[in-house]
Amino acid sequence: MRGDDLRFDEATLANGLRVIGEHNPNAATTGMGYLVHTGSRDETPEVAGVSHFLEHMVFKGNERYSAEDINRTFDELGAEYNAFTSEERTVYFGSVVADRVGALLDVLSELMRPSLRQADFDVEKKVILEEIAMYQDRPSRRLFEHANERFWNSHPLGNSVLGSTKSVSDLSRDQMQAYFDRRYAPGNVILAVAGNYEWDAVLAQATERAGQWPAFETHRDYPAASTFAGHEEIVDANLHRLHAAYYAPGVAVEDPDRYAASLLASVIGAGDGSRLYWELVDKGLADNASLSHEAQEGAGSFVGYVSTDPERADAVLEEYLKVIKDAQEHGITQDEWRRAQLRTATGLTFRAETPMGRLMSFATNYQTLGEYQSLTELVNEVMETPLEAGARLLEARPFDRDYLVTLGPKD
Amino acid sequence: MRGDDLRFDEATLANGLRVIGEHNPNAATTGMGYLVHTGSRDETPEVAGVSHFLEHMVFKGNERYSAEDINRTFDELGAEYNAFTSEERTVYFGSVVADRVGALLDVLSELMRPSLRQADFDVEKKVILEEIAMYQDRPSRRLFEHANERFWNSHPLGNSVLGSTKSVSDLSRDQMQAYFDRRYAPGNVILAVAGNYEWDAVLAQATERAGQWPAFETHRDYPAASTFAGHEEIVDANLHRLHAAYYAPGVAVEDPDRYAASLLASVIGAGDGSRLYWELVDKGLADNASLSHEAQEGAGSFVGYVSTDPERADAVLEEYLKVIKDAQEHGITQDEWRRAQLRTATGLTFRAETPMGRLMSFATNYQTLGEYQSLTELVNEVMETPLEAGARLLEARPFDRDYLVTLGPKD
Repeated sequence: MRGDDLRFDEATLANGLRVIGEHNPNAATTGMGYLVHTGSRDETPEVAGVSHFLEHMVFKGNERYSAEDINRTFDELGAEYNAFTSEERTVYFGSVVADRVGALLDVLSELMRPSLRQADFDVEKKVILEEIAMYQDRPSRRLFEHANERFWNSHPLGNSVLGSTKSVSDLSRDQMQAYFDRRYAPGNVILAVAGNYEWDAVLAQATERAGQWPAFETHRDYPAASTFAGHEEIVDANLHRLHAAYYAPGVAVEDPDRYAASLLASVIGAGDGSRLYWELVDKGLADNASLSHEAQEGAGSFVGYVSTDPERADAVLEEYLKVIKDAQEHGITQDEWRRAQLRTATGLTFRAETPMGRLMSFATNYQTLGEYQSLTELVNEVMETPLEAGARLLEARPFDRDYLVTLGPKD
Repeated sequence: MRGDDLRFDEATLANGLRVIGEHNPNAATTGMGYLVHTGSRDETPEVAGVSHFLEHMVFKGNERYSAEDINRTFDELGAEYNAFTSEERTVYFGSVVADRVGALLDVLSELMRPSLRQADFDVEKKVILEEIAMYQDRPSRRLFEHANERFWNSHPLGNSVLGSTKSVSDLSRDQMQAYFDRRYAPGNVILAVAGNYEWDAVLAQATERAGQWPAFETHRDYPAASTFAGHEEIVDANLHRLHAAYYAPGVAVEDPDRYAASLLASVIGAGDGSRLYWELVDKGLADNASLSHEAQEGAGSFVGYVSTDPERADAVLEEYLKVIKDAQEHGITQDEWRRAQLRTATGLTFRAETPMGRLMSFATNYQTLGEYQSLTELVNEVMETPLEAGARLLEARPFDRDYLVTLGPKD
């Protein structure tokens, strides 16, 4: 919205760190984040979970800022802040009212130079192990941890973000330091800002705070994906519901068909108003029956989920697959496509309503694709993606190479 | 933010329906909602769950608008929309870009005149039963369904929003119609709008669309609460974690001490930076250890949650209670209070960043307390609540009358 007032700012520091911004003079707040282009896909099995564990350790601070100092500073700033780790990136971010941008940049920059003290590491390991253990009582989460690894078939996109109890237990502080020293290169990091800020001041301060971080080379592997196809059943007599995960090969984020794949998944399985919704959820046959598309660097996937009464699981799963295969056999309609476009554009627009929401979209896009896209361009690209692009994707018959795994009380 | 530009609008139609608005000339979108002052606390045991079930039925439409028409209209409008039911209210809401306010008001107003067809009712009952069944594999949800009912001790705030499999199965369409005819009185409904709109146009359209709804009396009971105190253990050998729910008597939403109670809970158990956080979560002893305060009409409660390894459950629960009792015995500090104030003000500010976020705050406040509060007034009230108010609450020793219930694999 108000796209005409927006301005994109972009600079690269001498050490390779890129600073980007989307300036909105009407915004009352400013979002800011360091996006590190590293995640579980960059881990070897011995250090599985290190990216996420490191994200936690970053908040333990350094010689100048203790964990308590960091916590207090964010509170005093009135900042909303957090961090997350995915397969592809680790992001540290915060939002403040616009006149506190400088102080936010200071504390976020401190975070990026963590001491990784042994004593902190030993305690934080327990925190991570608790987080892993927490999911034991969440069957859908357990299911997807298993399914993602199996589907990707030793491709690094199948690496678990949390790691396992064993891999985290075995991890040493020095291994984490080595990972940091290998992955947190300035050239592998973007500092992004969105909302109301003064570009010259941000750039000068970024140069002062981050410009001296030593530069070095980093590398990400992009092996070819050879995904797993087939059916699996996991029986857990303690469960009450039948949970199913569904995967099929999709397209990579750099593929021009990435929007077509998202729209196709939306027609088939969006949470509301899709074929799967009308056939299974709206009829009260399943509490969830969905399909979405995830585009990552170098590879993508269609990912679905079904949850239902074990007594009718066979019929529900049959119908679930039938809806997907019918779309592949007979295609989808122009009306369905247009409504998926409208829903997708609406979602993009409302997620971009705040500076932080906008930052997550444009900075992630920039980090992955190397170019800036305004919200208007993004929405236009979705609205101009033709039905024929979806039809072409179906002609490649992605759902012939699908993987379905169930977790439930019966075999 | 930008509080100086805001204007509050208010009118009451001849049939008692109130129309309120918070106009923000800088907003690019507009949020709108019908807030019905009815929820599970207004249900008798025979119709437990009818408020929530009715919320679903509303989207089935009437003679002029089918379920499909409703779905299509929201899609075409580019609206984000949804509904929810709580103990106290049922809310139907949507957001659009500002020039589509009229069309959004049209479709939301249609929703409020549902046909409640028998055929739709029979199918939707299955949807509700699936939603109830879904929680069987979510132990924390099961725990709180039980704990809330037990703590409130036959007070209507203990009524389940979803109802039970039995109550929903037994419910008839005519019982739902009778509930609608008793509770959906115009005088029991508020139409609220936030963001960019033309007040005269909204009011004229509201009068045309809703002004002829017949007026009648409604009534909500406010019995005195006599909450349950004690300890309970529920054993489920199938679980992997120990889940505990904690309750203690709090203050009602109309109590001047409602902010003090929230701040007190924040010092003791906010998700980040609280005493419970530092003692249990930060040390890796529990994946969750929290306390918050819920202020409802006529009564309130402190509500907490702990999740941990069953092997150390005794020690963790002992520490959890010790942290709370220590606060009661020895009080809290000015520094802790101030940081809780800052955190709370920050949360309020960022939740108000979008018109829809703002609407949920001011319209709910207005419905409950009968007065408008701007964000600035709200933040000031939080920041000006003195530590002494928290100390006074502790002097009443609320945590002496607490209730703790565990759900886990061991007895």
